[in-house]
Amino acid sequence: MAAQTVATDSPKTVDLGPATALSCRECGHRVPLGPVFACEECFGPLEIAYDFSAYDAEELRKRIEAGPANIWRYAPLLPVPADVTTKPNINPGWTKLVQADNLAGELGVTGGLYVKDDSGNPTHSFKDRVVAQAVEAARAFGYTTLSCSSTGNLAGAVGAAAARAGFRSCVFIPHDLEQGKVVMAAIYGGELVGIEGNYDDVNRFCSELIGDPAGEGWGFVNVNLRPYYAEGSKTLAYEICEQLGWRLPDQLVVPIASGSQLTKIDKGLQELIKLGLVEDRPYKIFGAQAEGCSPVSTAYKAGHDVVRPQKPDTIAKSLAIGNPADGPYVLDIARRTGGAVEDVDDEQIVDAIKLLARTEGIFAETAGGVTVGVTRKLIESGLIDPSKSVVVLNTGDGLKTLDAVAGTGLTATIRPTLDAFREAGLAQ
Amino acid sequence: MAAQTVATDSPKTVDLGPATALSCRECGHRVPLGPVFACEECFGPLEIAYDFSAYDAEELRKRIEAGPANIWRYAPLLPVPADVTTKPNINPGWTKLVQADNLAGELGVTGGLYVKDDSGNPTHSFKDRVVAQAVEAARAFGYTTLSCSSTGNLAGAVGAAAARAGFRSCVFIPHDLEQGKVVMAAIYGGELVGIEGNYDDVNRFCSELIGDPAGEGWGFVNVNLRPYYAEGSKTLAYEICEQLGWRLPDQLVVPIASGSQLTKIDKGLQELIKLGLVEDRPYKIFGAQAEGCSPVSTAYKAGHDVVRPQKPDTIAKSLAIGNPADGPYVLDIARRTGGAVEDVDDEQIVDAIKLLARTEGIFAETAGGVTVGVTRKLIESGLIDPSKSVVVLNTGDGLKTLDAVAGTGLTATIRPTLDAFREAGLAQ
Repeated sequence: MAAQTVATDSPKTVDLGPATALSCRECGHRVPLGPVFACEECFGPLEIAYDFSAYDAEELRKRIEAGPANIWRYAPLLPVPADVTTKPNINPGWTKLVQADNLAGELGVTGGLYVKDDSGNPTHSFKDRVVAQAVEAARAFGYTTLSCSSTGNLAGAVGAAAARAGFRSCVFIPHDLEQGKVVMAAIYGGELVGIEGNYDDVNRFCSELIGDPAGEGWGFVNVNLRPYYAEGSKTLAYEICEQLGWRLPDQLVVPIASGSQLTKIDKGLQELIKLGLVEDRPYKIFGAQAEGCSPVSTAYKAGHDVVRPQKPDTIAKSLAIGNPADGPYVLDIARRTGGAVEDVDDEQIVDAIKLLARTEGIFAETAGGVTVGVTRKLIESGLIDPSKSVVVLNTGDGLKTLDAVAGTGLTATIRPTLDAFREAGLAQ
Repeated sequence: MAAQTVATDSPKTVDLGPATALSCRECGHRVPLGPVFACEECFGPLEIAYDFSAYDAEELRKRIEAGPANIWRYAPLLPVPADVTTKPNINPGWTKLVQADNLAGELGVTGGLYVKDDSGNPTHSFKDRVVAQAVEAARAFGYTTLSCSSTGNLAGAVGAAAARAGFRSCVFIPHDLEQGKVVMAAIYGGELVGIEGNYDDVNRFCSELIGDPAGEGWGFVNVNLRPYYAEGSKTLAYEICEQLGWRLPDQLVVPIASGSQLTKIDKGLQELIKLGLVEDRPYKIFGAQAEGCSPVSTAYKAGHDVVRPQKPDTIAKSLAIGNPADGPYVLDIARRTGGAVEDVDDEQIVDAIKLLARTEGIFAETAGGVTVGVTRKLIESGLIDPSKSVVVLNTGDGLKTLDAVAGTGLTATIRPTLDAFREAGLAQ
């Protein structure tokens, strides 16, 4: 919880654009912008406070539309300096919002179904969005090393962003990860350290390192840089609304790991409403989990406000956080907006991956199978209204979770002759 | 060589925008737009002829800039109907042109080094560009099945595009491909047929099928739809110039498989010059091959005009075409523009993949290792001028060729303690 001293000594020298302070989500206590993540008063999570008061809606909209085809078009709404585009970064975002008419037909959606496909990011997951923010915060605080613990997407995103932006990187993973994942994380040339232990051991070690002189000058993207990092998820909300012609969708289906992404999407939508960039009308946010790691869904269904930790056992490994830090906030948002939290089992996840691929040509990670599967389930149960618009998030790429669909294969094997072709019933 | 009759019976009903005819690259003989690919007079390759005479440069530029963030912004220059964006397609393109300052530093390039990174396409290779064109041609000619032979990127691109656009797909591959590649091709739910034989057997079988009634109604994207398909590569040239601020790069490094992509990039650049969208000044095109499949490079160095086939043996499998159809045209272009054709061996390919990842955070396919490696070699040999701008193509994604860099791994393995961390020399 202890702050490192880099920035809090000299808060006024930190230029992070419209960001003015860190504010405690629980008690509202404010501290200057710095590499801290927990409130010194109540240990609640800190998040970024902004001053957007100077913005005129029409001018801001034009400025955004004239911006680059990446998240920096929204620089006026993010904790980054105004000249962010002049600095080397991985420049993620502005991924496709796919109008999924074929999938809509299968699911009976008549109000418009869209897939926000974040597999188009540089390392093919939404993590590029949050890491790109952490890079700018690390730069502002004078850090020279980017770090994280990871078992997958985050390791690649940090490695790639550090390489481009000129940081050293040191990523910690369990020492016995699959070779493919190790290659994907190692290719960017940073330090990739295998920790003898499981993912919990890796995390415990990282927490020790942050408080130790050995970790001085290190930005752990999802720990001491977390308030900045997390804001990257707001860009999903901005892009969805802009791509819909500056309109709010009626319903959004968002995966839940720590829950941070869902809360920041809600924050982004609220900001657009307050800024007058979209009309103020109701939207519903639905959270999606895998049954094998469904602490938030379980709490939602039981009517609880607290989330009881679970031991994950699911193929959706990128969502397998058994004790999600933002779980209670997710429950709040689902209930406040009239949404829900639902889960699907591994078989339903695989079915949904195949459904999305077969209808829209999008090969999603298991997390995308979770959101598509939950969407189908919520339509069947009547909680999602198919006559209104639905946006479903795909946050990753199927190429990274090939094992989940390893049973998919050849539909026929034939000799190279036309007779064999006809006999196999392939002539149509 | 025989034309199917779908379109040649009624050429006037085919609306493919500015495309007016098919023209033989060898003898100039013209035929109506249809699903034919070889000249009936001389068996030369047919390519698309256009009527661009009505375009005003300034209006066209504005129209393009106001277009969508995909290849259809260039619809006025492609064989597609004007309303192409209203039809379901995979909508590839408008991928990042990365200003590669770190790589420039390593290679000593001072005139500006850029990587055109086509791993950002929907199925993460440039094949999405050409397949998207084939889809529109298939639609125009009334085909209902999309097909191809493939051992990799093309299978996925066809499967995904067919799924989105509402075509049946039937892709032929050697029956003993690696499981990962089979999954990537099968996930989109089309027919995936394993042929008992090698890739040559697959191709021979496909040629038979095209001439047989069993293949009627089938669009083989890179055979009977090849003239349309190939035009997709022009969009790489358009995007590079627009992303440079409507300027020609001084030097381009392009991978060679069949050679089609390189010839179409040249065609695209020539069109932009003729249309007045870029200034008419010299550019050099350099072709890049793997030493283990270097028929064009070998011919170039020997001063030959003909290309002698080779039996491929290289890790750059997406470039492993031993008898490249467009080889002689590539030689022409390299010589006419003052470029060259060069090759690198497998070790240099792997080194270049790692160099690009470490400097720019881009994880390239082996084909990207070939272009980056050849760029380095041509700078060292003085054929590429480092004081002028260079654009290097990365046409695919490292996630698809993990085997090539399988040796990449952990930099250290430690117990989860700070002492172990210090002992490993990781504290900096």
